[in-house]
Amino acid sequence: MAEQGNVGDITQQAQPDVRICFVGDSFVAGVGDEERPGWAGRLAAHAHRRGSALTSYNLGIRRDTSADILRRIQAECVARLPAGCHAGIVLSFGVNDTMLEAGSCRVSAEDSVSHLRELLARLGRQGWPVLVAGPPAVADPAHNQRIAALDSLLAAECSRHAVPYASVVHQMQGHETWRREVREGDGAHPGSGGYDALAALLQPAWDRWLAAVRAGSTGL
Amino acid sequence: MAEQGNVGDITQQAQPDVRICFVGDSFVAGVGDEERPGWAGRLAAHAHRRGSALTSYNLGIRRDTSADILRRIQAECVARLPAGCHAGIVLSFGVNDTMLEAGSCRVSAEDSVSHLRELLARLGRQGWPVLVAGPPAVADPAHNQRIAALDSLLAAECSRHAVPYASVVHQMQGHETWRREVREGDGAHPGSGGYDALAALLQPAWDRWLAAVRAGSTGL
Repeated sequence: MAEQGNVGDITQQAQPDVRICFVGDSFVAGVGDEERPGWAGRLAAHAHRRGSALTSYNLGIRRDTSADILRRIQAECVARLPAGCHAGIVLSFGVNDTMLEAGSCRVSAEDSVSHLRELLARLGRQGWPVLVAGPPAVADPAHNQRIAALDSLLAAECSRHAVPYASVVHQMQGHETWRREVREGDGAHPGSGGYDALAALLQPAWDRWLAAVRAGSTGL
Repeated sequence: MAEQGNVGDITQQAQPDVRICFVGDSFVAGVGDEERPGWAGRLAAHAHRRGSALTSYNLGIRRDTSADILRRIQAECVARLPAGCHAGIVLSFGVNDTMLEAGSCRVSAEDSVSHLRELLARLGRQGWPVLVAGPPAVADPAHNQRIAALDSLLAAECSRHAVPYASVVHQMQGHETWRREVREGDGAHPGSGGYDALAALLQPAWDRWLAAVRAGSTGL
């Protein structure tokens, strides 16, 4: 009832009120992409063009690890996903967790997986469906090896909870545009061409997942 | 030191590390604009095109009043604005405050001003320069009158604290594209043409303010 006459409410009668939070790191935020907010913005725009209206919130933060995300995800998403909407969370992290500082990873692989488990438990208690997008590749081959190892662990953990996981690190590591733009950029982030490629790679998983969110199915 | 080798850090030597949070309501989030995040995204892209690299975070939330913003602004901005960066906050609210529910405004004008005062005090204590963008116009003339009255009060409060304020309600109310898109939309939000117009109107104040943030001046 309080939603009546709500200027924030553009839901049309035939459309469910879908609201998605993209939560993660600088790749989620689209760092390096000047015109649009990276792959998350592209996936949301793609859904709009297909006639699936949605509200999307980009909650990517530079340098964020899984520990940082765990600290903030609940408060930030509760503020954006009111009861009654078709809510969903797209989650992505891993490049910062596997970054070396003083000789060891910022977050150990064991802790990354444990953070993911806790994230999925919390989001599950809220009743929010989750799609996890794996970490992409950077310019440093040794770092990419650690990312790929974590990617496998995250995929296995998602599989245990029947949460969809889109692995991208191997394709991005071999993708010519991504590699060139990352190399010509800061060594980690691509430009708009790389984000185009990453969004295209994520799109099938996104389309499937979003259709389920729109249909109101939470038991993904 | 911890920032060394940071994949979230694309700062080039000649460029200050500028990070801006746009905090506010659905207009800040760009609701109605399918391809890009509204006027905030346009102002950030405009700065990039002029060679002023920056990281921008869009923290607009549908239905948010000044009371909602006050509750979350500190935690959300602290997570995004690390010490050492050239941080800044663009703040915008008012249309939801002046929305009638059960015959009275969701937030009284007195409380809106008091919330603004508290917001400016908190952001000032953090040392973050602030630019306030006034609320735009909607399709309902009576609501626009309340918005215009609040706009004057917010402008006066900002002036007392020497914080720049960009009033837009009168120009948007008379702007043909804005009016048409709002009318053809949900009665509150325009499409991309309206956001183009609003961004163009805000641009001079944004350019001036951003130049000061880049220069590291916090005493705006």
